[in-house]
Amino acid sequence: MLVGGKHYRTVWLEGATVKMIEQRMLPHKFEIVSYRTCAEVAEAIRSMVVRGAGAIGAAAAYGMALGVAEAKDENDIKRAAELIRSTRPTARDLFYGVECVLNRSLALPAEKRRQAAFAEAQRVADENAENGRLIGEHGEKLIKDGMRISTHCNAGWLAFVDWGSALSPVYAAKRWGRSMFVWVDETGPRNQGANLTAWELMNEGIPFKIIDDNATGFLMQRGEVDIAIVGADRIAANGDVANKIGTYENAVLAKENGVPFYVAAPTTTVDLGCPSGKSIPIEERSQDEVLCKCGMTEDGTMARIRTSPKGAQALNLAFDVTPAKYIKGIITEQGIMRPAELKKLLG
Amino acid sequence: MLVGGKHYRTVWLEGATVKMIEQRMLPHKFEIVSYRTCAEVAEAIRSMVVRGAGAIGAAAAYGMALGVAEAKDENDIKRAAELIRSTRPTARDLFYGVECVLNRSLALPAEKRRQAAFAEAQRVADENAENGRLIGEHGEKLIKDGMRISTHCNAGWLAFVDWGSALSPVYAAKRWGRSMFVWVDETGPRNQGANLTAWELMNEGIPFKIIDDNATGFLMQRGEVDIAIVGADRIAANGDVANKIGTYENAVLAKENGVPFYVAAPTTTVDLGCPSGKSIPIEERSQDEVLCKCGMTEDGTMARIRTSPKGAQALNLAFDVTPAKYIKGIITEQGIMRPAELKKLLG
Repeated sequence: MLVGGKHYRTVWLEGATVKMIEQRMLPHKFEIVSYRTCAEVAEAIRSMVVRGAGAIGAAAAYGMALGVAEAKDENDIKRAAELIRSTRPTARDLFYGVECVLNRSLALPAEKRRQAAFAEAQRVADENAENGRLIGEHGEKLIKDGMRISTHCNAGWLAFVDWGSALSPVYAAKRWGRSMFVWVDETGPRNQGANLTAWELMNEGIPFKIIDDNATGFLMQRGEVDIAIVGADRIAANGDVANKIGTYENAVLAKENGVPFYVAAPTTTVDLGCPSGKSIPIEERSQDEVLCKCGMTEDGTMARIRTSPKGAQALNLAFDVTPAKYIKGIITEQGIMRPAELKKLLG
Repeated sequence: MLVGGKHYRTVWLEGATVKMIEQRMLPHKFEIVSYRTCAEVAEAIRSMVVRGAGAIGAAAAYGMALGVAEAKDENDIKRAAELIRSTRPTARDLFYGVECVLNRSLALPAEKRRQAAFAEAQRVADENAENGRLIGEHGEKLIKDGMRISTHCNAGWLAFVDWGSALSPVYAAKRWGRSMFVWVDETGPRNQGANLTAWELMNEGIPFKIIDDNATGFLMQRGEVDIAIVGADRIAANGDVANKIGTYENAVLAKENGVPFYVAAPTTTVDLGCPSGKSIPIEERSQDEVLCKCGMTEDGTMARIRTSPKGAQALNLAFDVTPAKYIKGIITEQGIMRPAELKKLLG
């Protein structure tokens, strides 16, 4: 993905330093941050400097490699894994990234672990970027010329190492010369549609309009949405999908209005250990994300404002579960699957 | 309704001055503003100092009375009516308020108009408050002890002259000694759930939590909502309901999850001239309401922040249409009706 004509990944390694785009400052400021310890990377995941299933998977793998480099013994390595696993509970790719580096390291004698851990983390990141590219290759066939696409939250290249999941088919279709239009919903509580997806689409030169989260259903009712594509944080064996809160609403409304509803995710997001969506842990985040909003004031400083009465309480569920019956297909790096096929194809 | 132990209406007349609560400052500051001309009241409606179907109906009637008092001839009176009608297109009660005062004035000789116009505006406001009270009386039977209620936007006393529509049954049930819990969705783009409904419920001492607009469906799926009640800005003859954007989404999700979905509105909100929701004009408001958010900074000043990239465009439809088939009942001052009965009962 190009920012000001230069190619970036969302998270990458330079020597033994993990670098990433500071996503909390977007779209207002484009900043790169650097971390040299496992604990710093864990905190970056927890505080959402980096977010999005694939991107935190790679960040977790890199953080785990730093943890291996810092470790004096196997117990230190296991503690590093626990630290990163404790940052966010829902996204499957985070656990995948940790497990890859952890298992690779523990299988080796101590003196070989450091190099192998960095190599494995890099493999996880490269695999994620390549999966994003392949999701685009399989999914672009769904995007006909002139289509109006709805998406939710950000499942573009900022949510991956590169390319993205839900938006990768859009970017691929654009490279095939097709035109399209994207409805970007704001995606409360953190406004990641307006903050991140809109910024990506501007950089890609794809026409879009921002709509309130409340408006997606009405646009579907009025026949102004041709296809809906969203990402996924974890996919259960039966095809139920955990994704950013509000995905379930959009899926039900798509079904009600005859809009095909697709989920795009690499197979690393599938968790065959979860029989259904009911067993996916749903992260509950700070109430402040609902009670306040962050953005840029007219004088160019970042500010947080309260948009609720003092003393009010909120419930902030970060994800919801969309039952498989609402999902027409899951776009993976291996092709487009029906939710019911997942277990057979991947099991 | 009591604010700090004192009873207020949302909009009222003192002599020839229209007073109203400045709703754009809530919940951060409780301010009363005063207007002495028809043009000032029209601007207050347009800029949403006052909002909510019933409250702008009364404000329109009072503004129209000022217009009659200012008028030199019948043409001036008609121009005042046009000015107020042009402020906001969707809410039926606004047109009702204008028509009541306009027709009453024009039916009289010039020297009797002023006094009659103020009296008629006061009748419209009193009728609205009484309708709110009666909606509560009819609707409270739906609220069983311990129920968890979802609502959308603000259809409480701030949206009416007093009592409200959707929240009036809740307030009435509380006065009968029943306990309840309200899920307050934020209601973007202007966050009127978190700003207004939450503030009302705090004043009424009713327990609630604020949730993101994206979360209502998931809470319904998890069985955490027993009943949904919303207001209405205009109801077509076939029972289709125009209300704040997002109402349609909540109605579809309620149906999908077996949650009874009620609309509360006085019969003055019914427009038998609209055969269905398709003929209800839907207001499109400023893009800035979607691209920016308003609230209070930590140092106690009101601020507007941008939550989208510079140069991005938005579509801001203020209302949507919920087809009658999703609505279990319409709670009016005359009782609870099925949407299909409206035409027969009121025609």
